Amino acid sequence: MSKLLILGSIAFDQIETPFGKSNSIMGGSANYIALAAAQFEIPAAIVSIVGSDYPQEYLNLLTERRIDVSGIEIVQGGKTLFWSGKYHNDMNQRDTLDTQLNVINDFKPVVPEAFRDAEVLLLGNLHPSLQMDVLNQMTQRPKLVVMDTMNYWMNHTWDLLMEVIARVDVITINDEEARQLTKEYSLVKAAQRIMAMGVKYVVIKKGEHGALLFHEDKVFFAPALPLAEVFDPTGAGDVFAGGMVGYLTKTRDYSFANLKNAIVQGANVASFCIEKFGAERLLTLTHNERTARLQQFRDLTQFDIQLR
Amino acid sequence: MSKLLILGSIAFDQIETPFGKSNSIMGGSANYIALAAAQFEIPAAIVSIVGSDYPQEYLNLLTERRIDVSGIEIVQGGKTLFWSGKYHNDMNQRDTLDTQLNVINDFKPVVPEAFRDAEVLLLGNLHPSLQMDVLNQMTQRPKLVVMDTMNYWMNHTWDLLMEVIARVDVITINDEEARQLTKEYSLVKAAQRIMAMGVKYVVIKKGEHGALLFHEDKVFFAPALPLAEVFDPTGAGDVFAGGMVGYLTKTRDYSFANLKNAIVQGANVASFCIEKFGAERLLTLTHNERTARLQQFRDLTQFDIQLR
Repeated sequence: MSKLLILGSIAFDQIETPFGKSNSIMGGSANYIALAAAQFEIPAAIVSIVGSDYPQEYLNLLTERRIDVSGIEIVQGGKTLFWSGKYHNDMNQRDTLDTQLNVINDFKPVVPEAFRDAEVLLLGNLHPSLQMDVLNQMTQRPKLVVMDTMNYWMNHTWDLLMEVIARVDVITINDEEARQLTKEYSLVKAAQRIMAMGVKYVVIKKGEHGALLFHEDKVFFAPALPLAEVFDPTGAGDVFAGGMVGYLTKTRDYSFANLKNAIVQGANVASFCIEKFGAERLLTLTHNERTARLQQFRDLTQFDIQLR
Repeated sequence: MSKLLILGSIAFDQIETPFGKSNSIMGGSANYIALAAAQFEIPAAIVSIVGSDYPQEYLNLLTERRIDVSGIEIVQGGKTLFWSGKYHNDMNQRDTLDTQLNVINDFKPVVPEAFRDAEVLLLGNLHPSLQMDVLNQMTQRPKLVVMDTMNYWMNHTWDLLMEVIARVDVITINDEEARQLTKEYSLVKAAQRIMAMGVKYVVIKKGEHGALLFHEDKVFFAPALPLAEVFDPTGAGDVFAGGMVGYLTKTRDYSFANLKNAIVQGANVASFCIEKFGAERLLTLTHNERTARLQQFRDLTQFDIQLR
């Protein structure tokens, strides 16, 4: 069975929404990605770093789901990355109230021996030098390398970012970031420019407006499921990426046709994540719930028009 | 063959976009709706009003396309409605620079005798009393009544608007207007509330983010086609509605399944409209061009995932 390796952050998140305020809970891209990918029951591992304040029970939630945590460095006496944010009434905008980088400042990723030949590698949104470092530790080039990034790295580490982009197959990026990366307002043109940087597939995340997948001259669109209530959007983008790579690792088909399926799977898992605080909903999500909602995605978009 | 009746405005539009500035050109909801519906080669009529400054050649563009203009009152010595607007760089926001209501201030719609039994009636975005007036002139209740409206009528003519809404089958409305109409941020909840006002189908237009169709507990999503360039979005919402009702008048099937097809058809015609200033592109659009792009809509959204 093929394996998935995830580079990402592990954090404590404190979240305020119009519906309430969370305690300091399990957060960070690596947790969201791994818990989403675990829905597909594949062997996965995380490369990340925490302080000794990070509870063993959070790590247990991962190992119970076949997620190898041996690549998560625990810094004795160190403090785990902390983030707190507040959402506005429309849930589409948030303010970061506090970020304490803590141990992640000195993070030197080490890929566990057993995952250096992982078939799929997801480079979460971290400093491009960390992404490059992990990529270089692989004993063979993964079949699929996916990266996430953000505007901060475009502003501060442009050259290095370009080097990483040139070595990956898939980039996931939100619409604003795609525009900033390319200076193109049209997402079609932006995607074309990103592909010219050496990427095979460009996935543009538009939040509640769904996600676009570009490949060569082709484009596919996965809508977000229209929901009566969005409780907490934190992590939805990571969960989307995690569901996508989980499905791809499971099916081992990296064609455009299957990437389409993968982003629908990602959108599906993400639609659950936003129903509760943080990653809470992912911990109870069942295979049957997922499958039932996939049918809703199908009903949402499938039509039977005559081409006349 | 079934007939379509359209109530709407006819105007001169002067449009400025980052790509250029138009002269005073053919505009108004009725023109956009009718030219879009005419793609489906059905008998249609417009009820509207213009001044004697309105060129006969613009009316000829309608009659050449089987659009009856006998319900367009020409006020001798009067001036046609005038609108001018300017789009910002991102094309999603525009400023209205000038609106001169002119003859539309004294508009008393008269439905042509031959269209009082029209099977489909589209009540364009005008004062609800005009919409009601036209509805009351029908000798039999149309099989399908569609209405468009906007925030202005919510602010100024609430009670009358509610009376019209209670008598129509389909409402087309944009996302902001749906929220204002219902005080619900979630579009799912907003649509439910609007259906509770007596509407069978709610179509929420999200511009470049596509359109949602709600019916009972069902929902369908038609994406907008991702385009490399948007030249001028003026009229796209009306063209969407016009394509929708044109297709429905042609197929005479008012089921949810066919409404899905209809909004895809509407989105398809709208995707052409925004390629040139005003309604210009609709005047040259061919059946084959439309059909080829419908295949793109299919490719954009259809996937073949296993429900596992």
